[in-house]
Amino acid sequence: MKVLVFNCGSSSIKYKLYDMPDGTLIAAGLVQRIGEEASEAKQKAGTKEIRMQKRIGSHAEGMNIMSVMLTDPEKGAIQSMSEIGACGHRVVNGGEKITGSVKIDQQLIHIIEHYSELAPLHNPPNLVGIREAQKMFGDIPQIACFDTAFHTTMPETAYLYALPYWMYEKLRIRRYGFHGTSHRYIARRAAQLLQKEKYGVNLITCHLGNGCSMAAVRNGRSVDTTMGLTPLEGLVMGTRTGDIDPAIIFHLVRKGYKPEELDSLLNKKSGLLGISEISNDVRNLEEKAASGSKRAQLALSIFAYRIKKYIGAYLAVLNGCDGIIFAGGIGENGAPMRARILEGMEFLGIKIDPEKNRAAVGKEAEIQTSDSKIKIMVIPTDEEIAIARDTFEIASGIGK
Amino acid sequence: MKVLVFNCGSSSIKYKLYDMPDGTLIAAGLVQRIGEEASEAKQKAGTKEIRMQKRIGSHAEGMNIMSVMLTDPEKGAIQSMSEIGACGHRVVNGGEKITGSVKIDQQLIHIIEHYSELAPLHNPPNLVGIREAQKMFGDIPQIACFDTAFHTTMPETAYLYALPYWMYEKLRIRRYGFHGTSHRYIARRAAQLLQKEKYGVNLITCHLGNGCSMAAVRNGRSVDTTMGLTPLEGLVMGTRTGDIDPAIIFHLVRKGYKPEELDSLLNKKSGLLGISEISNDVRNLEEKAASGSKRAQLALSIFAYRIKKYIGAYLAVLNGCDGIIFAGGIGENGAPMRARILEGMEFLGIKIDPEKNRAAVGKEAEIQTSDSKIKIMVIPTDEEIAIARDTFEIASGIGK
Repeated sequence: MKVLVFNCGSSSIKYKLYDMPDGTLIAAGLVQRIGEEASEAKQKAGTKEIRMQKRIGSHAEGMNIMSVMLTDPEKGAIQSMSEIGACGHRVVNGGEKITGSVKIDQQLIHIIEHYSELAPLHNPPNLVGIREAQKMFGDIPQIACFDTAFHTTMPETAYLYALPYWMYEKLRIRRYGFHGTSHRYIARRAAQLLQKEKYGVNLITCHLGNGCSMAAVRNGRSVDTTMGLTPLEGLVMGTRTGDIDPAIIFHLVRKGYKPEELDSLLNKKSGLLGISEISNDVRNLEEKAASGSKRAQLALSIFAYRIKKYIGAYLAVLNGCDGIIFAGGIGENGAPMRARILEGMEFLGIKIDPEKNRAAVGKEAEIQTSDSKIKIMVIPTDEEIAIARDTFEIASGIGK
Repeated sequence: MKVLVFNCGSSSIKYKLYDMPDGTLIAAGLVQRIGEEASEAKQKAGTKEIRMQKRIGSHAEGMNIMSVMLTDPEKGAIQSMSEIGACGHRVVNGGEKITGSVKIDQQLIHIIEHYSELAPLHNPPNLVGIREAQKMFGDIPQIACFDTAFHTTMPETAYLYALPYWMYEKLRIRRYGFHGTSHRYIARRAAQLLQKEKYGVNLITCHLGNGCSMAAVRNGRSVDTTMGLTPLEGLVMGTRTGDIDPAIIFHLVRKGYKPEELDSLLNKKSGLLGISEISNDVRNLEEKAASGSKRAQLALSIFAYRIKKYIGAYLAVLNGCDGIIFAGGIGENGAPMRARILEGMEFLGIKIDPEKNRAAVGKEAEIQTSDSKIKIMVIPTDEEIAIARDTFEIASGIGK
């Protein structure tokens, strides 16, 4: 069965076409800057590439261009869109009751709409993608995979804030966590590599990419994670603050700042970019730091320090673990960053092997010393294949 | 030398009179609800007690009543206020340049005024106390002891937020930390009890009282702490949230809440009280929890869980430590809470002895098992004696 996986943003459609169950990637494409002047569409299918530049006014138009590219007689990947047997959609927030991937029906659409209020930047475009796919593909199965689903196993001790309880009851304010599909993928893959049952491993998973989050995984299930009600909480990110004293906001409001200004400032102008005033990109900052930039060094140190603290926190939560897993662009490729994070953690049973660490770039590897109590693993994440697998299983009746 | 120690709040004057250098407590008093209808003043000097109920309109009046009580011929403690050789004042925020206790001069008063903006509830009444004491005592030495001073040794990696750097440069937004006098007192006392040099111990100090904070202490110096720009950040407290996703504020503002409403809600209606909807007091909640209240159990679990996470985080920061110290009302007396916090931390070298823990109520004790790698100590804190000692040393020229 051919499965098409969607990740739709407010001005973009990312898609990947897989042959399932073997998981071969047939084509991957991106339609971006939808609604802007200079929209763009590109696709790669094996060695064949297509690139178009033209104004694309809506997600509906973007989907049509995708179908033109996928079925292009020369550089396409399939002969007809009817070859596609199911679609999988990444959806950011499914709330607390959606514990896994689900076939989309009217009720599920209501749930996604309901949680749009808590994920205003993500759920609405995810939903646009679902609706356009429904129109385009008629009645083939449409499956939704939620970023929050993997974290629904958190106990209330971990997901509740110390706010008045009615805010949870009435407003559903709690820790949801995100990047769940990635944390699940790397947790399952780590279990395989460690030759353990998927529900038989304790892990600390670090997804360090554009957004960064960590999860504490007990017996294969998420029991805590760094992102909260929104993706702002937790680790320092490219342009997001992560954890701060919430009273900083009140202090700045008293000084005349507007809440909406601060919202944008904390989400878009902070993090690595805010500290360094140079870049939001770890690779860039590593270069600047190596050539002596104090501010780049500072940004990288703070980034690493917060991850180190959460590793300690999650070791306390799990009472030890089998492995610490690094994934995402920074986690998979950033050997100097991994070294910075794990330096001086011998007391906690964590010893990184500098050679193995340097060699582990963008590929699966164990990078601990032979006497490290805890394994340290690099596992490139793949959220799309995880979505494709869920979609295939549900569409073909293997899954629930 | 007799030393009078002040802790002045917006409607209260707490004072303790010591005989130094031996540190004998001569009298302790409290003037409260200043400016309200039903003000009250009370004092204990040995077994002699005084209690007055009358309207007290100002801190100046309160100071006069204090002097009347201290010199009361029958139930007082001294014959004349001129016996007092120096005053010590607790001040909350001294900013980043005041690294220890200091003799008060005009320049220091400017600094305390300057940081009032960052500590609007605390620095102004602290300053009122200083000014009234200057009026009352003429030119005896007045010493200020700052809550922030002990934490000025934090490295920038720990004290900087991942906000735009200019917010630190221009607005001095950073982690300051509080309860410094308490953390210092228990760190020094722990070093003595462990028979180590004061700059030769690594500790995790937990001050769990009305406000709650923890510090990571490396070589006797604070290198990280849970409170931040304000005392809202970090642990769950009686009525404060501690850490939350800062974007919760933006979300609630979009729903129509006003920032000043939220400020009060997060500081005064959250924490243990907010979760439990029963009480802000751990003792109360322990009773309710024991008789089956789910909500009391939940509040206590969340409170403990956050402390457990910070213990792990600070173990990662310190790469192990000599001891974990419990102080403050909850830390000193709350045996069930200590057990809850430290349960299941064997991997990290932490094993609590249930018997020793139960027996350690309000007194110095070690409560770990014999095979625990890390010592667990209960040390009743005493901020006032610490202030009295600093004051005596500086006033008598022993200190700097």
